Formats: sequence, structure tokens, C-alpha cells
Amino acid sequence: MISVVLLGAGNVATHLYKALKASDTITVTQWYNRNIKRISTYANEVDITDSLNDIKEADIYIISVSDDAVAELSQSLPFNNRFVVHTSGTVSLYDLDKKNRRGVFYPLQTFTQGADLDFSDVPFCLEAIENSDLSLLQSLAAALGSPNYKISTEQRKRLHLAAVFVNNFTNQLYRIGHEISEANLSDFDILKPLILETAKKVQTMSPYMAQTGPAVRRDKKTIKKHLKLIENPHHKAIYELLTDSIAYTHGRKKL
Amino acid sequence: MISVVLLGAGNVATHLYKALKASDTITVTQWYNRNIKRISTYANEVDITDSLNDIKEADIYIISVSDDAVAELSQSLPFNNRFVVHTSGTVSLYDLDKKNRRGVFYPLQTFTQGADLDFSDVPFCLEAIENSDLSLLQSLAAALGSPNYKISTEQRKRLHLAAVFVNNFTNQLYRIGHEISEANLSDFDILKPLILETAKKVQTMSPYMAQTGPAVRRDKKTIKKHLKLIENPHHKAIYELLTDSIAYTHGRKKL
Repeated sequence: MISVVLLGAGNVATHLYKALKASDTITVTQWYNRNIKRISTYANEVDITDSLNDIKEADIYIISVSDDAVAELSQSLPFNNRFVVHTSGTVSLYDLDKKNRRGVFYPLQTFTQGADLDFSDVPFCLEAIENSDLSLLQSLAAALGSPNYKISTEQRKRLHLAAVFVNNFTNQLYRIGHEISEANLSDFDILKPLILETAKKVQTMSPYMAQTGPAVRRDKKTIKKHLKLIENPHHKAIYELLTDSIAYTHGRKKL
Repeated sequence: MISVVLLGAGNVATHLYKALKASDTITVTQWYNRNIKRISTYANEVDITDSLNDIKEADIYIISVSDDAVAELSQSLPFNNRFVVHTSGTVSLYDLDKKNRRGVFYPLQTFTQGADLDFSDVPFCLEAIENSDLSLLQSLAAALGSPNYKISTEQRKRLHLAAVFVNNFTNQLYRIGHEISEANLSDFDILKPLILETAKKVQTMSPYMAQTGPAVRRDKKTIKKHLKLIENPHHKAIYELLTDSIAYTHGRKKL
């Protein structure tokens, strides 16, 4: 049994709480939040507190708060030599106060408020100074049914950057697809199976091999037609830049 | 029973052939290709030909060849007043020779050579001049188990443009995620569940509502850190443009 105290009540913390609670081999000893109202609905199933001085003993303390608040909260903990981890993609391991043993338990996934997520689809990036602490994090990820990877702070920061490309920027391309289809009096629903298939394809094939379309085919005629169709100058700039990027990746000069 | 003659043997045509063949309410009367070798492996299950003069009678003739070849092939057909459709996203209905009844049967999906696709995930954009021909295309899509939409040539051209954004450009962002993770000695596999979840999210939530990350949060500190991390100038230009695009969509000036 792994005992955990969770600190924070944001979107990631709340998803994490539910997954920790659901595991047979994890005990959530306590849930701390500065504003206790945000977790008061859980009072019947877990010990909740808003006082750092009341925090109980546990194998792992998981700090899941906004990036800027991690260091300060770690300094405020009124104990030492216990195992304290954070869940941020961008905060260094060394930003945690060194009075405790330090680690990182970063879930590389997008969490949506109100939508449950299967934690077998949540890969964790793990980091710890002591080998025994790393093993404990591996056991914690395994107890959640999640894949896990040993990742350094530098690697994690770059993975977080890569995640911005494949998640936030991709979502913005969906948004542009939405804008174009709505302006067109056609329905965004028509594009949804394509969106899903595009993501499925790279689960088993490299994005390089999966690429299709006018840019990789050097189909200048279609590219020209598309540029003529685009009215929004922002969309046009993105079309041109990504078309060049595809041409560049596939070993060609600008189209 | 709907009888079909298929013309062409590219990626879309081959996927279409298999789906047509598998349907209980469709007969593939004949498969034509200029180069018969490309379809000779199917000779034991369907009548194949490389001669336009030998083409048989059928309810629908589906021309599935490269965009540039559609018009010419439609002119070469040695019959008239039959129902001839193409499968292109960019070719006009009126590019088909008017000696026959004309239509469009455009599957808005990405087809991967060798990978089977469930046709319930292939929405068809339908167009025809006669109402009875449109009904026939609706029956054909239904016989494949596919959703279908009545879409004009102008709408279809814009949907094809939107598809380039959500498919080709998204795939290029995956490629950049791949490059960043590989250069980082971490594994692209870590990003795969995030890629899939990002696509799943917009099946039930608008991309606008689904957006997260530093650009929409106005988190200038993280954006600055990311820009410092990016070594490739192409990646940097894309990061900046898409960050601005997200800020613009969400009602903000440049970040």
C-alpha cells in the first residue's frame, strides 16, 4: 500500500485524486487545499484540510498547484526528509525545497474538467534523486495503471514544449478548420472522423510516413487554389508557413 | 442492388473497391484501369478491364483518378446519359463531361495504403444535378455504412481546404513533436496518448472550449522559456505564429 497526501485542487489535482482514490494499492491519507471549499464535497470520503500544520505522515506528498506556486508551497511544508514531488511539466526538480527528498510526477496529458480519463492513457514522466524514490514513483504509476518514463528536468521541459505543438497548436488548427467549415455553412462534424483518423494514424506510423496532401506532393496548382480561397490573413500566414515546413521536412525547397 | 463500375486504381479507388465489394446491396459490375496490371490480383473476384470500349452498363460510374485526369477520362467514356461521378475534393462537378449525368462522391478522410478503414468513419460529400441522382448517391453511401452530406462544389473546395489544416498541417505538428522528442533522447511514444486525446476531445467539445496551454492562459513566462528552448528556426516561426493565432482567437492582442 502506498500512502499519499495530495496538495492542490486544480484540474490535474482533481483528476489525480479520483485515480489515486480508485486504486486498490494506494491510500489517499489526506487532501490539502489552501481554500478548503474547493474540496469540501469530498469530505465524506477523504480527510481534508486547509492547514499545513495538520498534514499527516505519508509515503509521497504530491504538490499539484500552478507552476508559480510550487516552490513556495514546498518551502512552507512544516516537515523534512519526506518525499515531496510536483506534477509540473516546466518546473525544475531543484525548485522544490531541499529540506525534503525531491521528485517529479508529471502526467503528459490534457485534462478536461468534468470528463473522466482512463489513466492507462496518461504517461507519467518520473524524476527523483534517490533510486529508491524513483522506484516508489514507478510503483505509484503502476498502481494507477499508467505507463511511466524516467525523464530528466531538461528532457521534461522539451517534452512539455513538444506537447504544446501536438496539443495546443493542433487544437488551434482544429479551430481554424471549425472557422472555415462554419463560414462555409457546412458542418464541423464532417471533419471530425478525419481529425480522429489523423491522430490514430501516427500511433503506428511515423508522422513523416503518414504525411499526404498538396504540400508533400508538390501540387502547386492546389496550393495556389487554396491560397486564393483563404480570406483570413491569419489563416493564410499559417497555410504558407506550414506548407513550407512540410516541403522542408520532405527535402524540398519552398513550394 | 446498386451496380457500380469503378474507374481508377489509386489509394482511394482501392479502399473504395474493397468497401463496395463488402456491401451486400452493391454489385461491382466492373473495375477499369488504364494499366490493368495494377488490378490484376482482383481478377478472380471482379470483372476487370483496361478498355473503355468494353465498359458495361451500371447505375453509377465512379471515376477515382488524380484530379488532373478526371475531366479527360470523363470525356473518353464511349456512352452518354449515364450517371458519372468523381471522388475529388477540388474538382468541380462541371469539369465532368456533360454528355453524361454528373455527380460527386467525395470521401473526406485520409486513406492509408495497406490499412483497412471502417467506412462508418468516412463521411461522403455528395453532389448531383438531378434529385434522383442525389438520392442514388445517398443510397450508395448508406450501403457503405457511411455518413453523407449534400455539399456544393464551392463548399466542397473549402472543406478540402479545412481538411488540409486538420489533417496535413496537424500531421506536420506531430512531425515537429517527433523531431523535438527524438532530439531530446526521449521517446515519441510518450506523446501518442496526448495526440489521441486531443483529437478525441473535439469530437464532443468545440476546439475553442478545448483550448489550454500557455498561449490561451497568457502565460508569457512559459512562452519565453519555450522560445529559448527551440533551436530550429522553422519550429520557432511556427511556435510564434500559432501562439499569436491562439491569442487572437481568444480575443487578445499579440502576446
